Amino acid sequence: MGIIGVIGGSQVSSEIYRLAYEVGREIGKRGHILVNGGLSGVMEASAKGAKEEGGLVVGILPGHSKESANPWVDIPVVTGMGEARNVIIVRTADVLIAIDGRYGTLSEIAFALVFGKPVIGLRTWECDFPIIRVETPGQAVEEAEKFLK
Amino acid sequence: MGIIGVIGGSQVSSEIYRLAYEVGREIGKRGHILVNGGLSGVMEASAKGAKEEGGLVVGILPGHSKESANPWVDIPVVTGMGEARNVIIVRTADVLIAIDGRYGTLSEIAFALVFGKPVIGLRTWECDFPIIRVETPGQAVEEAEKFLK
Amino acid sequence: MGIIGVIGGSQVSSEIYRLAYEVGREIGKRGHILVNGGLSGVMEASAKGAKEEGGLVVGILPGHSKESANPWVDIPVVTGMGEARNVIIVRTADVLIAIDGRYGTLSEIAFALVFGKPVIGLRTWECDFPIIRVETPGQAVEEAEKFLK
Amino acid sequence: MGIIGVIGGSQVSSEIYRLAYEVGREIGKRGHILVNGGLSGVMEASAKGAKEEGGLVVGILPGHSKESANPWVDIPVVTGMGEARNVIIVRTADVLIAIDGRYGTLSEIAFALVFGKPVIGLRTWECDFPIIRVETPGQAVEEAEKFLK
Repeated sequence: MGIIGVIGGSQVSSEIYRLAYEVGREIGKRGHILVNGGLSGVMEASAKGAKEEGGLVVGILPGHSKESANPWVDIPVVTGMGEARNVIIVRTADVLIAIDGRYGTLSEIAFALVFGKPVIGLRTWECDFPIIRVETPGQAVEEAEKFLK
Repeated sequence: MGIIGVIGGSQVSSEIYRLAYEVGREIGKRGHILVNGGLSGVMEASAKGAKEEGGLVVGILPGHSKESANPWVDIPVVTGMGEARNVIIVRTADVLIAIDGRYGTLSEIAFALVFGKPVIGLRTWECDFPIIRVETPGQAVEEAEKFLK
Repeated sequence: MGIIGVIGGSQVSSEIYRLAYEVGREIGKRGHILVNGGLSGVMEASAKGAKEEGGLVVGILPGHSKESANPWVDIPVVTGMGEARNVIIVRTADVLIAIDGRYGTLSEIAFALVFGKPVIGLRTWECDFPIIRVETPGQAVEEAEKFLK
Repeated sequence: MGIIGVIGGSQVSSEIYRLAYEVGREIGKRGHILVNGGLSGVMEASAKGAKEEGGLVVGILPGHSKESANPWVDIPVVTGMGEARNVIIVRTADVLIAIDGRYGTLSEIAFALVFGKPVIGLRTWECDFPIIRVETPGQAVEEAEKFLK
């Protein structure tokens, strides 16, 4: 059992939303804690999936109020620190799954690599960095689990 | 149900440890989430109490690794931000209970007052500020509950 | 020469404003760097005083834009981290002068004591903590200078 | 006149060190403020160059003490927040010049893009993002100046 971070954009296509939801379901089903940024898009979809399978969801929020969290967050951690909260998501997760995403997600992948945390990538940034690329939500969580004790 | 923050020193007498433990037990018994700084002293004692009653404990850690958390923390939130994490404890809690404590605790009481969060004080700082003073762990959690919906 | 932090409220009486302005003038005159929170009240008054004497003013801002800084800030450091920036003001200063102030100032005094930094108090919080109390702006800066190499 | 951020690795080849030094000289010569992370490598080289031309250097430090700053930093801003300080460098700069660099630099480029700040790239990350690529230190500072009022 471990803490899996899911990172990705706040505005996504319905296809990406579905993928993130499936990733969340797999995480919940397998009894892991999900940590993410607590807002919309990939954050919301993965939280929803995890909750529907009985998982526990931690949302590390950038703003000043827990009201900004999506309805599937169990534990809203209110930082009031804006994008600096990305660092906390990455440090809190044992392993990260990146799905789609724009520059915020790129900052999180970068921090994961700074801290030596493994990153599993599902339709995400293609730069010259060592992340593990997968094709399906199931593969993403399977690969992530290899890094958990 | 709500999120109750417990703040207090990392090095405490056995009497204060016992008080913090009883506060944690009351929080766990009543089904609230406990958030604190995740380390020793009041943080450890309250976490232990809450866990023994089946509660959920969130530890907002100052350091770079979840290994620094005491054994009763369920969710170690790893900030890597040192004492700036005090702000996050206060923002995350709906209401705070301050037990004993030195300057770090004083910074947390001060932030709670900045953010307009209620503070219940049990043998803690006596300055000219509006916190609610109580005499026992039971009273502390009862007073705290009045601020939860 | 050193870095002197000036902390105090953002809304102050004209008397306190004048005291903070005089403290800023003394800091500027003696060639020290002034660091503060960059906004109004004591922050503005001390910055204005320092600038008028040719000093250098660093404003550690809580918000997302340098436009929030008062006009006497030379170096606006934009944190986007809200009140967590109080920690940075305290860590950056070699010594702090607290003037008046409410809960935010109290949090800064508390952090200074956590980090072992000297605090000179001019009409500020009266709690049971070891700060050096003075009566005039001149005394405040003289006492602060004793801690600078 | 403006605040130019220079980002890049802490461990660099002598060729990159020289490029960063030249970028710093151009910044100092033209009267801009240089902000960077205050440590070694690109941070040190650019600070050295700027100081030799009479510029002002602000170092936003990750650690707990100003002693970690390189000798060419005029204003050591001590955050104690680890890599979260990368956000502050980016927010404080009006425009950024990225030179070489690894994952920390990538996080800074990503934050600049999140915040809508222009990034000039000199031998740095090649991902699919909109940064302005240049070949020489002189071009880097010229391009950066176009974004300053």
